[in-house]
Amino acid sequence: MADRIIVINPNSTATVTADIATALDGLRADSNAEFECLTLAEGPPGIETQRHVDGVVVPLCRLIESCDNRASAFVLACFSDPGLQMARETTRKPVLGIAESGLLTALTLGDRIGVIAILAGSIPRHSRFIRAMGIEDRIAGELSVELGVTELADENVTYARMTDVGKRLTEEKGADVLVMGCAGMARYRARLEDALGLPVIDPTQAAAGMAITASRLGYRTGIQRMN
Amino acid sequence: MADRIIVINPNSTATVTADIATALDGLRADSNAEFECLTLAEGPPGIETQRHVDGVVVPLCRLIESCDNRASAFVLACFSDPGLQMARETTRKPVLGIAESGLLTALTLGDRIGVIAILAGSIPRHSRFIRAMGIEDRIAGELSVELGVTELADENVTYARMTDVGKRLTEEKGADVLVMGCAGMARYRARLEDALGLPVIDPTQAAAGMAITASRLGYRTGIQRMN
Amino acid sequence: MADRIIVINPNSTATVTADIATALDGLRADSNAEFECLTLAEGPPGIETQRHVDGVVVPLCRLIESCDNRASAFVLACFSDPGLQMARETTRKPVLGIAESGLLTALTLGDRIGVIAILAGSIPRHSRFIRAMGIEDRIAGELSVELGVTELADENVTYARMTDVGKRLTEEKGADVLVMGCAGMARYRARLEDALGLPVIDPTQAAAGMAITASRLGYRTGIQRMN
Amino acid sequence: MADRIIVINPNSTATVTADIATALDGLRADSNAEFECLTLAEGPPGIETQRHVDGVVVPLCRLIESCDNRASAFVLACFSDPGLQMARETTRKPVLGIAESGLLTALTLGDRIGVIAILAGSIPRHSRFIRAMGIEDRIAGELSVELGVTELADENVTYARMTDVGKRLTEEKGADVLVMGCAGMARYRARLEDALGLPVIDPTQAAAGMAITASRLGYRTGIQRMN
Amino acid sequence: MADRIIVINPNSTATVTADIATALDGLRADSNAEFECLTLAEGPPGIETQRHVDGVVVPLCRLIESCDNRASAFVLACFSDPGLQMARETTRKPVLGIAESGLLTALTLGDRIGVIAILAGSIPRHSRFIRAMGIEDRIAGELSVELGVTELADENVTYARMTDVGKRLTEEKGADVLVMGCAGMARYRARLEDALGLPVIDPTQAAAGMAITASRLGYRTGIQRMN
Amino acid sequence: MADRIIVINPNSTATVTADIATALDGLRADSNAEFECLTLAEGPPGIETQRHVDGVVVPLCRLIESCDNRASAFVLACFSDPGLQMARETTRKPVLGIAESGLLTALTLGDRIGVIAILAGSIPRHSRFIRAMGIEDRIAGELSVELGVTELADENVTYARMTDVGKRLTEEKGADVLVMGCAGMARYRARLEDALGLPVIDPTQAAAGMAITASRLGYRTGIQRMN
Repeated sequence: MADRIIVINPNSTATVTADIATALDGLRADSNAEFECLTLAEGPPGIETQRHVDGVVVPLCRLIESCDNRASAFVLACFSDPGLQMARETTRKPVLGIAESGLLTALTLGDRIGVIAILAGSIPRHSRFIRAMGIEDRIAGELSVELGVTELADENVTYARMTDVGKRLTEEKGADVLVMGCAGMARYRARLEDALGLPVIDPTQAAAGMAITASRLGYRTGIQRMN
Repeated sequence: MADRIIVINPNSTATVTADIATALDGLRADSNAEFECLTLAEGPPGIETQRHVDGVVVPLCRLIESCDNRASAFVLACFSDPGLQMARETTRKPVLGIAESGLLTALTLGDRIGVIAILAGSIPRHSRFIRAMGIEDRIAGELSVELGVTELADENVTYARMTDVGKRLTEEKGADVLVMGCAGMARYRARLEDALGLPVIDPTQAAAGMAITASRLGYRTGIQRMN
Repeated sequence: MADRIIVINPNSTATVTADIATALDGLRADSNAEFECLTLAEGPPGIETQRHVDGVVVPLCRLIESCDNRASAFVLACFSDPGLQMARETTRKPVLGIAESGLLTALTLGDRIGVIAILAGSIPRHSRFIRAMGIEDRIAGELSVELGVTELADENVTYARMTDVGKRLTEEKGADVLVMGCAGMARYRARLEDALGLPVIDPTQAAAGMAITASRLGYRTGIQRMN
Repeated sequence: MADRIIVINPNSTATVTADIATALDGLRADSNAEFECLTLAEGPPGIETQRHVDGVVVPLCRLIESCDNRASAFVLACFSDPGLQMARETTRKPVLGIAESGLLTALTLGDRIGVIAILAGSIPRHSRFIRAMGIEDRIAGELSVELGVTELADENVTYARMTDVGKRLTEEKGADVLVMGCAGMARYRARLEDALGLPVIDPTQAAAGMAITASRLGYRTGIQRMN
Repeated sequence: MADRIIVINPNSTATVTADIATALDGLRADSNAEFECLTLAEGPPGIETQRHVDGVVVPLCRLIESCDNRASAFVLACFSDPGLQMARETTRKPVLGIAESGLLTALTLGDRIGVIAILAGSIPRHSRFIRAMGIEDRIAGELSVELGVTELADENVTYARMTDVGKRLTEEKGADVLVMGCAGMARYRARLEDALGLPVIDPTQAAAGMAITASRLGYRTGIQRMN
Repeated sequence: MADRIIVINPNSTATVTADIATALDGLRADSNAEFECLTLAEGPPGIETQRHVDGVVVPLCRLIESCDNRASAFVLACFSDPGLQMARETTRKPVLGIAESGLLTALTLGDRIGVIAILAGSIPRHSRFIRAMGIEDRIAGELSVELGVTELADENVTYARMTDVGKRLTEEKGADVLVMGCAGMARYRARLEDALGLPVIDPTQAAAGMAITASRLGYRTGIQRMN
């Protein structure tokens, strides 16, 4: 039976979910893994504040519970990894957050990571997460394109800003690998790599790959659970 | 007009709220500061898991909004500092978390901090928080008394275990200052200091003191807000 | 009986002491706390070098001893925290340094701290102190206004430079909270906050608030003493 | 066409290579990925010293060059990750080291990692690698079973020692996830997880999963190359 | 003309100065370097508290000034490195502290350093210094023999305790190189190395060697000076 | 008998070896120490890639073995410290790497180190080494002159670029001490110090000084050896 990876977009914008599904095409050669991409109906159009992050945690975990039976593993497809730790208490299946997975993958491809954020207001939140991960010495910097989640669909503006931010991360901050800090940026990865000549990571792809592996290897979870 | 510090106990156990109010007696010499201690009706009896932590964030911020008009500052009285960042987006008044405040205060009283947790399952959660704070090099260790929040009311058992854990933190881990890692431990502070000969911090007291100061000094908040 | 916080200006410039006293007005609503601001006669006009810092430690601790009887707590009002550790051996009362207190307070108001120094030569000294505190991962940067302690009284020049340095700390270094790195900068706090839209901390105010709390809570000291 | 992951055992002991191939069975559900497990003829029977590590780098990279045409990605199956950086200059295909991959994967399964080494003499080498990775704040400790690579085949002794070391890492050092620090330990993973109740990572499995993902996503390399 | 290294014992116990002079015999093969070992008359019999450390700084720098003309470099022979930074402002000649030099030298001989302190009360002071140096990730631990500076002359007791502490640092804390944390321990180095089978560093020897090199190479100082 | 320090230039460019020998003139006042500077015939003209670094390790250690009898200590004169750990297993004599020694020496002369690299491609390699050393908090930054090892002989170009890079490290990155990140830069040290007004360290000189001291003091090695 195939491994079924349930990828949850915690915002309510279905086009972002569709983009996520497209981004996973690169991993569909594995005919025994299936991706099911879900939109969290209760989510805001885009997750841009701490209020948004914290507001989706409970409904997100409710969604995980409701589809736990058919899932092999879960991916939380928002770069703030909302509810990552609670999700790991909620299901015994592996749960991968895209921020965590994208950043860890970047550590295998370069020495110092640059993060492309959507909004300046996200940077302190990501910084807290990066320090909690304990990898802050590998971060060159984080800069924002100053576009909201739904504005990312304007390809010309978005691509121009991402290229500009990517160049500054490389030239001013010393990054040699970039992580796109939003699930809604997947479509820009290939172009950005070509323009900048550096590895660029779409965090949802990175997490989906790790989820298949974790599902197959049957990792126990280290998280204590309440019964 | 007096500064009014609203101290929220995010669990629903009213005796813990009463203990918190008693713990603040030490700060009542300031006749122009008032403490209003509230119990979060929606909270679990004790906050012991990530699910508990994440589950109280939204109702907690709703409670903050409902009493924002009469508050000068807020204290979140749970050692997991649930919703600390969202609360700082919710109100323009200063918000102090007891974990953050207790640990920072400890840095002024000793070189290496020992934390007395209630349950082993809380330790990874606290570790993430401590790394996010960026102060992990000042932590000697954390050990648990293995009692739930409501079990802390059994004074004999609790005191014996806290003393034992305090000794191990000091002798084995090298701590020279202790932080009690739960709002429900306040009543044991004086006895523990006498028994161990070290400064012991009740984090709620520490946060309440910082809240008065922050209120009076009128700090701006550095947190971005959604309008 | 009121808590009496003795605030020592370790330089010999009485106008700086007067400015410090004025800065504490924001905390005088607490009618049971009194501030007594003293000038260290033996100090240099401003503490600007390591020689100045180390030179005041012994007379400063002599002054602490001489007024220990009437003090509830002490504040050392120089951003190099001269003699902080020796002072904690000298008296059993709480001793707060303004650098330590100001930086710790900043950790509750923003993610990355910018420090406004008086002189470039102070920055390595502050860096050592910050690393010794173990909080270097939360520091965005430190830049100097290049004015000596006594030159800070020229309001126009000082304010212009502080604003400029504050902007650079924010825009180039990514700071979202600022700490004024000298006891003589207190009068510029409000204006700077308005101009920059960020929390700005006067470290003497921060330390004074922590001193009242520490005094009331009767913290033991963790420091070994020679008898 | 299938992704072909070439897994190189840098020691010359063919039974270790066979064990590695068996360990990868857990990932063979992906019918479009193939693993080719090679033994480095020039390697020592086991890699146990820095001399062993440094001695295999040049022949290992020669082997990579010789099979680069048919490879989609490479895995270096020794927990010292010998030649990892030179290999990344040698081929444009992704190269995963098992130490790096195993440790990064562990970061998604627990808070503090315990490493089970073969020999005490390996621990400083691993510590250097862990610090170079920048993840030392997430390491609880490393202890050794004191068995050489070829001795690991004695199942009773090895399993008993691994269980003992795993318990000490958990109980004394506070680990909540374990990484087996040698490619030759794969067969003990399941039993160890059952005995200890914690996630246990076989680093070769972890690296192989990351290699498939990296191959499919076509990551650029961030490494400068000589032409 | 010979390089003249002035080694200052900041305590007033002449037998410690004599021991220091003897410890430097190992470096006397260099016929163009001379050591002049001075006792600070104003110092206490042993430097055991922060009060002792801070109390010697001003007279120590006065002594440096008084013999600056004939010195090529200075060594401060107390493991608290009293006045190290002020001394570097006082003279343009290189100034080496024995704590700094001993710890840096240890980094070239092992992976994790164990420090043998005289008294438990010194450990927080050393910890602050080690964090200020930025090398805390290389420290395995520090334990004390609980003997005052002058008690170190009792060879049987001292050697037994040093051996015991050295074993605990190695076996329990994982140290693979030891630094003797007091200038008065020099005579025990050879025996301790033989007993423990590890490199043991006498910090005064390490600093004296670095002082000769610094003197000959004519390093500029990076320290700002007041004129 | 004199201490004989064997300094190995791991590249095959004899003029670099000659420059190294000249750089050591500053240490020849010690009439009982002799430097023997060897060129590694098997090395590339300059060590500029990881392939170069890893490629010289085995022949370098063979050279060490061949002259071990007459050596008192060894210096590896390439700023990538190739084979440093294997060399320490190969001989019982002290082995100093110039990167390690140069950086540690810089820690005694300033607060934040700037490194002048030859090529941008070396910077990630040095960063890994610096993190492995555990001193990353003391590094202000590293910038490159973009000249290969053999191009460094063009004095006008090299000096101009080194001055420019030195200024940027000081003014933009906040360095107050510089380390020249290549054995082939020795001849520029004095001029650079004069131009920039900062201490500048030639790492080969620093290592040679530490090697004499280590040789005389007879340090045991902490490294495990295979027999």
